[in-house]
Amino acid sequence: MTERRRSWWGWGWQDEALHDTQAAGLGRAVADRFDHHPPLRPPPRLADLELPAPRVEPPASLTSICSTDREDRAGHTHGKSYRDVVNGSYGRFPHPPDQVARPRTEQDIVDVLDWCAASGVTAVPYGGGSSVTGGVSCAVDDATAVVSIDLTALDRVLEIEPISRSARIQGGALGPVLEDQLRPHGYTLRHYPQSFEFSTLGGWLATRSGGHYATVYTHIDDLVSSIRAVTPTGISESRRLPGSGAGPSPDRLLLGSEGTLGIITEAWMRLQDRPEHKASAGVRFTNFEAAVDATRAVAQSGLFPTNCRLLDAGEAALSAGVEDGRHLLILGFESADHPVDEAIARAVTIARDHGGEAPEVKAGRSDEAVGSWRSAFLRAPYGRDALVRLSMIVETFETACPWDRFGDLHRGVLDAVGDALTRICGGGSITCRFTHVYPDGPAPYFTVMAPGRPGAEVDQWDEIKAAATEALLAHGGTVTHHHSVGRDHRDGYHRQRPEPMGRALEAVKAELDPNGVLNPGVLL
Amino acid sequence: MTERRRSWWGWGWQDEALHDTQAAGLGRAVADRFDHHPPLRPPPRLADLELPAPRVEPPASLTSICSTDREDRAGHTHGKSYRDVVNGSYGRFPHPPDQVARPRTEQDIVDVLDWCAASGVTAVPYGGGSSVTGGVSCAVDDATAVVSIDLTALDRVLEIEPISRSARIQGGALGPVLEDQLRPHGYTLRHYPQSFEFSTLGGWLATRSGGHYATVYTHIDDLVSSIRAVTPTGISESRRLPGSGAGPSPDRLLLGSEGTLGIITEAWMRLQDRPEHKASAGVRFTNFEAAVDATRAVAQSGLFPTNCRLLDAGEAALSAGVEDGRHLLILGFESADHPVDEAIARAVTIARDHGGEAPEVKAGRSDEAVGSWRSAFLRAPYGRDALVRLSMIVETFETACPWDRFGDLHRGVLDAVGDALTRICGGGSITCRFTHVYPDGPAPYFTVMAPGRPGAEVDQWDEIKAAATEALLAHGGTVTHHHSVGRDHRDGYHRQRPEPMGRALEAVKAELDPNGVLNPGVLL
Repeated sequence: MTERRRSWWGWGWQDEALHDTQAAGLGRAVADRFDHHPPLRPPPRLADLELPAPRVEPPASLTSICSTDREDRAGHTHGKSYRDVVNGSYGRFPHPPDQVARPRTEQDIVDVLDWCAASGVTAVPYGGGSSVTGGVSCAVDDATAVVSIDLTALDRVLEIEPISRSARIQGGALGPVLEDQLRPHGYTLRHYPQSFEFSTLGGWLATRSGGHYATVYTHIDDLVSSIRAVTPTGISESRRLPGSGAGPSPDRLLLGSEGTLGIITEAWMRLQDRPEHKASAGVRFTNFEAAVDATRAVAQSGLFPTNCRLLDAGEAALSAGVEDGRHLLILGFESADHPVDEAIARAVTIARDHGGEAPEVKAGRSDEAVGSWRSAFLRAPYGRDALVRLSMIVETFETACPWDRFGDLHRGVLDAVGDALTRICGGGSITCRFTHVYPDGPAPYFTVMAPGRPGAEVDQWDEIKAAATEALLAHGGTVTHHHSVGRDHRDGYHRQRPEPMGRALEAVKAELDPNGVLNPGVLL
Repeated sequence: MTERRRSWWGWGWQDEALHDTQAAGLGRAVADRFDHHPPLRPPPRLADLELPAPRVEPPASLTSICSTDREDRAGHTHGKSYRDVVNGSYGRFPHPPDQVARPRTEQDIVDVLDWCAASGVTAVPYGGGSSVTGGVSCAVDDATAVVSIDLTALDRVLEIEPISRSARIQGGALGPVLEDQLRPHGYTLRHYPQSFEFSTLGGWLATRSGGHYATVYTHIDDLVSSIRAVTPTGISESRRLPGSGAGPSPDRLLLGSEGTLGIITEAWMRLQDRPEHKASAGVRFTNFEAAVDATRAVAQSGLFPTNCRLLDAGEAALSAGVEDGRHLLILGFESADHPVDEAIARAVTIARDHGGEAPEVKAGRSDEAVGSWRSAFLRAPYGRDALVRLSMIVETFETACPWDRFGDLHRGVLDAVGDALTRICGGGSITCRFTHVYPDGPAPYFTVMAPGRPGAEVDQWDEIKAAATEALLAHGGTVTHHHSVGRDHRDGYHRQRPEPMGRALEAVKAELDPNGVLNPGVLL
């Protein structure tokens, strides 16, 4: 078996990238839909990259874990935002890390951070590298040397505790790597962000990752019982507890710290039994407001569906094969303990009461649209790489807001982004789905597609994104629900957060990382 | 209607205190059980108190909201821990607040804090005054003047938003005061700590209060969508959001800050519809380990019972009338949306699979032991005041731990406290119940009763409590699950929290409250 290689410029595995013929097929679909006929650019070639020479050498004690290999440096230059992939596709790698460090132990991390602090080198923690907000970017400034700390060698499940259904897991474990270690014991962490294959436990915790499930135990915040992290001024380890009222939660300060306060090396995670009972249903609506009301009613019912995902007509057509212009509410229930027939029947009844149409629900059976949506969801980022080569603008952004503000926010975003698309691209589409729902509000997720001007795509997208962010903030949304702040959302985040809490976080940063070694430009 | 008066030395309403004949009845029960025959001391009299004169006068602009009334000062001297009530019962009020301020507006709070900062006066925020950890104590040091800031005039529900089922509520609203304002709209916050009548929303948020319900939405942490607080260096207001991934949660830094970082003036809270469907059942066990296993299985089932409270035989006898020496697991389900028969049937089946015995479950009907337990729960603190007058030691402490550590923790606590009781009191009882359960662990709650030596009760209890805290920390528990840290748990909290996170919190304190005005001695 040959080792699979990760793409150093685009999404995922190199061998899963779309072939030229598949990409050309996408090109024809785009031409039909957007009257957009750019050539299919070839993918970038590693040999063509002009990488600046490394500006710093590690001390002898760290040379064995540091690399200046061309593919390593290119692959750790960008995250996976649209901007990153476009830049990658054009071979733009002006700020690669000077070194890529791959610690094998926690002590290695301590040593790398000590070296950075002593030598004025910046450290950028790197898990799976799937950040879509510039969170792993090494473009700090022109003068400062950067080491990208790739944590994926720290990928072990160290301990499984069956009575509490908990496991101690290293921060660098990618989703499939940790699930493979849990499966033989009958457990699952059951945390499935879209980036599951290419993101790590530590990255999930540092960025407050949102899982695939719609309600209750889906956010990584709620799945963790303790965190161990290396800060530049000492190791922090919280007590493993199911709950505690002892002061402000120490874990909640690291959750969302995005590598600015410390590097998460281990966490005790709450596991679940593998589900035995499943049921799902797709409910169709002709009226979007009615679909939103139905979704809200389900979210407020206390039924706690594992899936409660509303796709507007555009999304339903694009990714679930619903071609009749209707909106689709995907409902799902799962349990390891008890049948879920009654729960899904009640949820479907609620949706029908709001004007939805649903086929008979069968336990264990998936609606065809549901299955189709699921596979499209996981393949989508590979398609984007091909669309980038066709100079398409394809990006998503997301938020959360109270239910009472969603109508205005939705219209406001559609108007603002629609105007921007017309002005900047001469047209394009924006669609919406809910990725998560809460009793008090949804997490709307928007997808933008538009024809780009070859070579100018990043500037075009930046302008569209600015319009989107303004609309989100104006209508009471958050700059991010689960994509994180990174460098890209920093200014919006600063406008959103309470001023005293901004100062509080700066004070924490100064205390824990007095030399400003960790991830400058992120959050703060 | 005459205005009901709060007890200035004991629990709750003056007119609900046990009469001397009731107290004497308790005395006979105690005599039977503990062979303890102290006289029933009379309650303290306000006229007998020797209160030191106020050491500070407010500026003219604040005189109208400040009081030096004798009952006000006495009533704001202590919280409601056993220690507090004993001291109150003996007329020990050496450190009353110099002033009791009752702000009517947020600006009043700003003005009081400005005055404190300018004049070196300490501010102690005071909600309902039900702290059992010294959180509202004014015993700061002998030299510093103290103003107790009573927030209960800020008690309005300012806004109700039905679509998101949310309300903007002032921090000083006591439980019944806010529920009375929500009820006409068909909503409830559904947060019922034992102190419900005598604690405020702001106090719940500041101390991470745990509600009466066993699982999911019961902690105040999960019921809040934004917080507004006056810090000594500016007002902090978070965005009202159902969820957000924008940096470390600003609300989670105030949750648990216990009045050391700011005074919570308003919060947007998540409401619930009033439940329509209810079912409860009591399951009896002869074997405690089996009862624990059953409780764990229910907690891990994903059924999310609203009540899942295990009482050991001692607790079941004391407060639920179960006289046959068996342990009692109280299960309850509630919903505003759908019948809960199937859920409770499944939960009872799980409990029976672990050896529990349960009567037929009837929807809407309560097991007699369940109802009996509920009323005992709410009356218990009044009974304690009478027991204090009988020189009994009566106190509770609580924790949380992973399921796999519970057996050792339980034995360790029973041994350590049992030894201490024998040594210090010549005997006594310690019983255990679970107040909350999580998939990964329970929150055990211990009740201690022992004959005290008149006049020495506080010292005796301090010694017993120290043994309990050592045992909790040694066996992986937390110093508090929902009682808060206050001044009493501070040392244990410092041993428990991660060292870098302790420094982080100190840094936040220095930034937000540079003059150290707010609640010195609490947490930090």
